[in-house]
Parts: sequence; structure tokens; C-alpha cells
Amino acid sequence: MADFDHFGSTEELAEIKKLQAEVEADTDSFENWEKLVRACEGLEGGLNRNSSPQALATLRDAYDRFLLKFPLLFGYWKKYADLEFNISGPESAELIYERGCASITNSVDLWTEYCSFKMETTHDPPLVRELFERGATHVGLDFLAHPFWDKYIEYEERQEAEDRVLAILRRIISIPMHQYARYYEKFRQLSHGRPLTELVEPDVLARYRAEVEAPHAGVQRPELEVERDIRAKIDSVYYEIFTQTQNETNKRWTYESEIKRPYFHVTELEHQQLANWRKYLDFEEAEGNYTRVVFLYERCLVTCAFYDEFWFRYARWMSAQEGKEEEVRIIYLKAATLFVPISRPGIRLQFAYFEESCGRIDMARDIHASILTKLPDCIEAITSWAHLERRQASLDAAVEVFKNQIDSPHVDLFTKAALVAEWAFFLWKVKGSAEEARNVFLKNSQWYADSRVFWEKWLEFELQQPSTAETEEQHADRVKHVFDELRQKSRLSVATKKYMFQIYLEYLQQRGGKGAMKQFLLIDREIFGPPSVSVLAGSKSAGKEDGLAGPEMDEATKAKAEARYLPYYQLQGSAGVEGQGTATFH
Amino acid sequence: MADFDHFGSTEELAEIKKLQAEVEADTDSFENWEKLVRACEGLEGGLNRNSSPQALATLRDAYDRFLLKFPLLFGYWKKYADLEFNISGPESAELIYERGCASITNSVDLWTEYCSFKMETTHDPPLVRELFERGATHVGLDFLAHPFWDKYIEYEERQEAEDRVLAILRRIISIPMHQYARYYEKFRQLSHGRPLTELVEPDVLARYRAEVEAPHAGVQRPELEVERDIRAKIDSVYYEIFTQTQNETNKRWTYESEIKRPYFHVTELEHQQLANWRKYLDFEEAEGNYTRVVFLYERCLVTCAFYDEFWFRYARWMSAQEGKEEEVRIIYLKAATLFVPISRPGIRLQFAYFEESCGRIDMARDIHASILTKLPDCIEAITSWAHLERRQASLDAAVEVFKNQIDSPHVDLFTKAALVAEWAFFLWKVKGSAEEARNVFLKNSQWYADSRVFWEKWLEFELQQPSTAETEEQHADRVKHVFDELRQKSRLSVATKKYMFQIYLEYLQQRGGKGAMKQFLLIDREIFGPPSVSVLAGSKSAGKEDGLAGPEMDEATKAKAEARYLPYYQLQGSAGVEGQGTATFH
Repeated sequence: MADFDHFGSTEELAEIKKLQAEVEADTDSFENWEKLVRACEGLEGGLNRNSSPQALATLRDAYDRFLLKFPLLFGYWKKYADLEFNISGPESAELIYERGCASITNSVDLWTEYCSFKMETTHDPPLVRELFERGATHVGLDFLAHPFWDKYIEYEERQEAEDRVLAILRRIISIPMHQYARYYEKFRQLSHGRPLTELVEPDVLARYRAEVEAPHAGVQRPELEVERDIRAKIDSVYYEIFTQTQNETNKRWTYESEIKRPYFHVTELEHQQLANWRKYLDFEEAEGNYTRVVFLYERCLVTCAFYDEFWFRYARWMSAQEGKEEEVRIIYLKAATLFVPISRPGIRLQFAYFEESCGRIDMARDIHASILTKLPDCIEAITSWAHLERRQASLDAAVEVFKNQIDSPHVDLFTKAALVAEWAFFLWKVKGSAEEARNVFLKNSQWYADSRVFWEKWLEFELQQPSTAETEEQHADRVKHVFDELRQKSRLSVATKKYMFQIYLEYLQQRGGKGAMKQFLLIDREIFGPPSVSVLAGSKSAGKEDGLAGPEMDEATKAKAEARYLPYYQLQGSAGVEGQGTATFH
Repeated sequence: MADFDHFGSTEELAEIKKLQAEVEADTDSFENWEKLVRACEGLEGGLNRNSSPQALATLRDAYDRFLLKFPLLFGYWKKYADLEFNISGPESAELIYERGCASITNSVDLWTEYCSFKMETTHDPPLVRELFERGATHVGLDFLAHPFWDKYIEYEERQEAEDRVLAILRRIISIPMHQYARYYEKFRQLSHGRPLTELVEPDVLARYRAEVEAPHAGVQRPELEVERDIRAKIDSVYYEIFTQTQNETNKRWTYESEIKRPYFHVTELEHQQLANWRKYLDFEEAEGNYTRVVFLYERCLVTCAFYDEFWFRYARWMSAQEGKEEEVRIIYLKAATLFVPISRPGIRLQFAYFEESCGRIDMARDIHASILTKLPDCIEAITSWAHLERRQASLDAAVEVFKNQIDSPHVDLFTKAALVAEWAFFLWKVKGSAEEARNVFLKNSQWYADSRVFWEKWLEFELQQPSTAETEEQHADRVKHVFDELRQKSRLSVATKKYMFQIYLEYLQQRGGKGAMKQFLLIDREIFGPPSVSVLAGSKSAGKEDGLAGPEMDEATKAKAEARYLPYYQLQGSAGVEGQGTATFH
């Protein structure tokens, strides 16, 4: 970070410091960043090549960090490049353009700006053309690529290289684009004045010539007449291409016209917009052209960068293509490191599974660890890590994962409750020791009595234990014990306790013995009866029941106590729903 | 049913037949019944004592069946009694009143009408008084009982029995009622003209006399003076009673004033109304007067007769009172046989559990059987019956229940699918034979492949099987087999299949071995990937997938295929929710 002591006024200095602090406090806030860079630009009455090095360093620092956070904001790359041009000249500006185009590879605007800048500042045509060609690879197929192509054509026209203009048009007229008709018109007019050799490949030209001469075998026809016939042939071939392009353009028109925001922004998108992208991708995948599909995904993932749904989809689609392991890795990597909000760890977990399936176990470990740095209470990630160790290392390594987190001071009590339950399940299901698992539950019920997950897991554990006629009674006692403990020790809400006791009723009905219905009706009355006869009554949280469970919890604690967690793939189910308004990406 | 051949016009006859058919077609429709009785009343230009016996029989048949179906419609009992009075005289009318008051025991209106009728038609005061006293037992505590008490007082006034009027008022002024103040006022005025012996019991009077004479020991005071002092004492005691009644009335006022429909009707009630009844019952139970609580429940269950919530509550509350087994039975009996819609079998099942807990096993069986007469596809009742047999008879008897229903021609295919799954669970959990259970699933998957429940249960079964390091692989194969079968054989919706495959993903993660994540990512792509790479794609119902699963199902079949069933006590959870609009009782 720059040294603030030797530039600007005291007020400016204070303002910058304040804005920097605000950015640090909430790095997700686009507004904070915007204010900071605007303030930096205004330093010392507006920065220019005579500004102090400290002020310039402050500006660059702000822009660099801003664009590292939001690399898809093409407009700010342009602004940054302009500033650098004013401050340090074309070399510096070019470096910014390069970084920008590497960050957002498929921005028609940014590439057009870059090329435009290049053609104004460079007098060596091969260098300019090289850049245009790079741009064409990245944005040439865009439905709205016409500003770029227009600029390219403009450049070659300035060079008075009509042959090159024609060659460019020959490429463009096959691309389904918004302005396909205009380019065809331009191509048609230009082509009539250009030699045949520029219109088709030599072998094709030779074939056409042979074809038009064939009916007149042995007769020497005037070259003009022959050329006219060949041109007619070529015209009809290009007209065919035009018709096809028109057709392809029309097919995409409905999807394209529905795209209300083709660029990246930090705000949420309408559900309808997401639905349109889904349909468009369905369409382009069905068309089956790999390059076009990839191109559309890349465009979609500029607009929808924050929605993990499309990253998942891209990775799934790519993984179904032959030999694209590295491409899949890049998709996961970009999603996980740059775009998908940390609040949705699913894509990161799936990235880890991908690396594991490729044998890169340490990478899988690192991904888990990095989720936990940001989300120390992500039970799903901890459990997933434990199972990674179980699969690839050992049972002990897996248990170690749980223990580390349970011992960690950064992990919440209710997270620990869930982890203890997961650990017990581990001992039971993986190690095969129901005894050890039960001990974990029994010993820990005093610490985690307010966690819904803890009780649900304990109950699930006991209910699933097998029993024979001999152990029937012991089994029933164990189940009953869970409910007695729950009733006495836990401060969970009445609603949650009722939910749990419903499971007990079902158990009594389906596994209870001769006298089970007496117990059934007693529970039915004591738990589901009106306040005057219910043992849960008296306090809404059931906190004071029997005077045993201690004081009531505050609202935030209650929410944590009652929370249940869903694996990420269950959360995906909602992606297909077409709701009203905007779609959250958290 | 009456013979239609010798009465009325041909048009009348046809109309009655049509209306009778409509009633038969939908016996729950109040409108149909109403049209029928109205048409019957209008037969032969309006029925009277000169009408044909056939027409009268038709009318009586219609009323009898209507009021058997809706016994709480007090207005129709009154109308029926009036008709009988016109047709056959007071004895017939009295029989109708008796039946009416037995059917709806706590209708202030009906008892008042009955007593009013009795006092006009009977000249023997003891008989009339006996009826008033019976009425007082049934409706005297009603908050709006004043029409009844007014009628009683009116009768005694006509008899010029001021002592009896006073005695009635002495009773009334202790009852919290809407018009408590008016009765106190009347009592106060009347009491001043009545002898002291009518105002208090002899022993109390003697005590008062002793008390007012005590300060004047040895002095003979004039009787008038003594009486004045005693009356002052009595006045203050009755004022005390008035204050207390006022207080009790006020406590109930808010609940009473919220009751928008104090009578029975076939239409739904507002959620708010139900909420008010809940709060009112909470209050009266907290007050702790058994008679008053019972009285309030009986009132509530006229208004809310169709809502099983209140029947459950009444039974639970009553069962918590000492020695009220028979009262509990009557509650269940009324709920199950008369009021709660058959679409909600919960209270009937609980009735069966109650009888079972009292040792009346055959009664419990009969209740289950009677549910199935009306709801042959009630999986919950069938399973419950099987478990009843398991608890009280034998394993074989239990299995017999399943087999009978699976073989029954009246039972739907998708019900059978669920029963087969329940049966398999039985073999596994109760008989302890996972082998037999698995065979049931394997053999039946060809018949029930379109049932969601069938697959969910099969999956649950395999997932819960224990495995050791040696059987790990076999276990994994068995789980995979379920999913392979599901994918190939079932026509369940894509959404349901996705839901099931999520369980597979979790399984692979939590129990899979070293290479599990390869399989995980393959499933992830094939099931959750976009249409172009998904194996579920192509048809929305996944019907044509692989060309194996057969033609698509129609909408009704699909709904049955996808249905899940909840035990009745899970449906109760929603009772506490205070929604907008009316509350459904189905």
C-alpha cells in the first residue's frame, strides 16, 4: 500500500483513508470500491503525468485491487487504460489492456477499444493485425460483435487493403450475428470489383472454370464470358451461405433479444433472464458445435458469474466431452476462486471431488481447507473432508478431521454438536462400532442438548439399530432414553420437540409390543395435548419445562439450535424453478 | 323408502326421484339435501294432516336421513317438529323434539323451542318443569342461554309461582352470561318482596339472625328491624355473588364476542375462529372447572364438528382427567362415527389405539376394517392394522393383513406398491430377515416400478443394511442395482429421479471407496447435467428414457405414482398455524 504522508491535502488523505477502510469492511460492496477509485482519480485536482508518485501509486493500488475483485468490469479496465495512457503513455496503457483482456476474454467492447487504441498508437500493420486476429478468436463469434468487425474493416480500409477487407468479410458472412445482412451486402458489392482469386480457393476456382467450360467443349469462349459464368456460380454459392447464416441468426434471435443485461454486474438477475440463458444453452448444445457452445457458456458466465448453477452446468457439460479434463479443471478453478460467492460452497466441494477423482488428493485437501478459512462452521465441508480422508488415507485420519474442528476455538458450539453426531455416525457406519457411537452420544448430550441435529442423529442411530426378540426390550429402553433425555435436557422449541416425538409415536406403533398403545396415548396426550395437560406447555421454547433445562436462549442462538443443514446438491433442486423478480446467488 | 306410485303429480314424482338421486350421488352436499326436503314439503300443494300416507312417508324418510347425516342442524329439527305437529299432533312433534335434543344436546334454541312447545301443549306443570330442568342441565351454562331462562321464568310467572321464579333467579345469577346484569336486577327487585326463607337456606338464615341479634343481647328488638338487618346482610352476600359473576363474565367476554358462528354449519370456518376456540379452551381449562370445560368443549364441537383437531384435543384433555375412560370412548365414538370427514382417518386410528389399550382388540380391528370400507386405499390404516395384529396376535396374522389387501381387487396398484414395501420392511425389521425383504423388492420391481414409495423404501432398506470391510463391495453393488433398476424401469418424473439420485451421491460420498468420486462425478453429470448430456433428458417424465420404461402415464396416474403419504400425526402439525381465510377440514 502506498505511503500517504507526502501527497494531497489533509482532507483528501482523510477521505481516502476512510474510503479504504470502508472497502476493507465490506469488500463485496461495489459502491465502496467505486467511491474509492473515483476519489483516487480526483487526487491533487485530478491525476496526470505531473502528479506525485504517491498519488499515482494510490490510484494504481485501488484499481488493481478493485479489478482483482471484479475482473469482469470491462468499463473500468478501459478507464484504467485511459488513465495510464495520460499518466505514463501507450506502453503502460497497453499493459492494462492486456491484463483486462486476459481477465475478461470475451468482451466485444474491451477488445474493440484495445484494437482501436492499438491502431492509433502503432504504425506497424502486422502488429495491429495480430491483435485484431487475437480479438477475433475471443469475440468474433459474438452475436453483437459488429463494433469489433467494423473496426477491423475500418483499419484495413485505411490501409487501402481491399483484398484484406474482402477476406475479413468472407469470414464474417458465415457467422450468425445481429448485423449479418449488412455484412453480406457489403461483401456482395465489394466482391464484384475484386478478382476471382480473392473470392474462392484456387482448386475451387479451377473446378468452377471446368464446370462452366464443359458444355462448350472444344469452343474457345471469351474470358469475360467465362468469368461472368464463374461469378454467377460464386454468387450463388455465397447466396447459399447468406441464407444459411440468416437461418442460423433467426434461430438465435429469440434468445438474444431476451438478454436484457449482456454484461457483468454485481446486482442480481431476474429469474426470467436465468431461464433464457438455460434455454439458449440447451439450444446451442443441441446444435452440437463445440466452439459455439463454449463461446456461449463463456458469455453466459460473464453475465451470470455469481450463479453457481451455470458453473456446475458448464463443468458437467465439459466433462462429457472427450479429453477435456484440463478444461473442466479451469472451469472449476475460475468458479471456485473468482466468482461463486463463498456462501455457496457446493462448487468448491465438487472441485475437490474432481481433483480427487484425478488422483490429486492434496489439492482436494487444500480446497476443503480453503473453504473452512472463510466458512469455519461449514459442517458439510468438514464432513466431506473427513470422508475424503477416509477414502484416500485412513479411518484415523478421518476421525482426526472431526477432532481438530471440535477442538477449534473458531468453530461454533452448534457446529460442534453436528460434528459430534457425524463423528458418532462414522464410528457406527464406517468403523462398525455401535457401542462407541452410543458412547459419543451419551457423553456429549450434556454439552449439545440444545442442538436439533444432535438429537435427530442420536435418534436415527438408535432407531436403526437391529433388534431380535431377546434384545427388543433393551432396544425400546434405549429409544425411550433418548426421548427422556430430550424432554429433560433440551431447550429446543415445542414445535421441534413435537416433531421428534412424532417419530417416537411411529416407533411405538411399528416396533412396540403388546402394551405399546398405552404408552402411545400417554405421549400423545403429554406432548400433543392442550396446554393444561401437556408437559411441554408453560413456555414457548419449553425452556423452563421441569425447571431442568436452564434459562431461555436468545433469538440468534435459537436459530442456530434449530437449524438443519442441507447438502449442496439438495439446494440445487431449486435452480429450475422459475420465480418472480430477481434470483439470489447466495 | 316410500312407494312412489300413488301420490303427487307425475312431475312432482320425477322431481323427487331426481333430487333423491342427487343426494345419493353426493351425500355430503348440504344443498342437495335441502332441495330434497323442500320439495317433499311442497308435495301435493303443501303437506298437511289430509295428505296421502305415501307423501308423508316420503317427507319423513327425507328428514330422517337428512338429520341422521347432519344431526346438528337444530333449525331443521324445529321445522320437522312443526311439520309433525301439523300433520299428526303434539305426541309426534314431541318425539321429534326428543330425538333432536338427543342429537344436539346443547342447543339453546332447540331446548327453548321444545320447552315453549311443551308449555303450550301440556297442562300438567310438573311435566313442564321436568323438561325445563332437563334443558337447564344441557344449556343452562351457555353464555347466551337467556332465551331459555327467560322462557322458564315466563312459564313460572304464568303459573304465578313467584317463589319458583325467585328460585330460578337465585340459580341464574351465579352463571357468567351475556345478560347477567339483567337477571341480577330482576332478582334484586323480586327478592325484596319475598320472604327471607326463600332467599337463603334455613341454617344460614338462623346464623344471620343470631349475628344481627348478638350486639343487642338481652334486648327484644322489633321483628321488622331485625329483618331489615338480615336483608341488608343477604343483599351484600348477593351483591358479592353479582360482582363475582360480573368478573367471570368479563373474563369470557373477549372469547365470546369473537365467536362469529355459534351454531353448526357444513361450510368451513375462518382460521381466526378456530384460533379463538383454541384460546377459549385454553382459558377455561386453566380455570379448572370440569363441568364448565366439558360444557365449552361440547359447544365448540357443535361449531367445529368437522375439525378433527378439536376432537383430538377433547379426547386428550378428557383422558388426562381421573377415571373418565368411558367419557373418552364417547368422544372418540362421536368423532369417528358422526362428524370427522372420512378423508381424515387419524381420529379413527387413534380410537382404535384407545380401544386396544383398553384390551378391546376386536373393536380395534373393527375400526380399522370400517376405515377401509370407505377408504380402501388408506395405506396408513392397512399398515396400522398389520401392526395391531403383530402386537396383539402374531407375525403371521400381520402378514395376512398385507396379503389380503395386496390381493384385493378394490385396492389401487399404487397402494399395493406401498403395501409391498411395508411388507418387506416388516420382514426385515420385525422378522429380522433382510434376505426375505430383499427378495420381495427384487421380485416386485417389475410390477411397481412407477411407484415412488416403492423405490424410496427399497433404497432406504439397502442403505440401512450394515456392511463390514468384507461385504462392502457387495453392499455397494446392491445399492447400485437399485439405481440401475430405477433408471431403466421406472417412469417416475425427472424431478423424483433426481431426488433419489441425490441420495446415491451422498451414499457414494459417505460410504464409497477410493474410486467413488469418479462414479460421483459420472452420476452428477448424467443425472444433473444439462439435457445434452443427461440420461434423463428427452422426455419430461423420463418415460422414454432408454426406450425401456414404456409409454407415458396420464396425469392422474402420475399423481398417484409420485404421491407420498404422511402419518396422520404429521398432518396435525399444521393445526396450530393461523392462516388467512377459511380452514379446510379435509
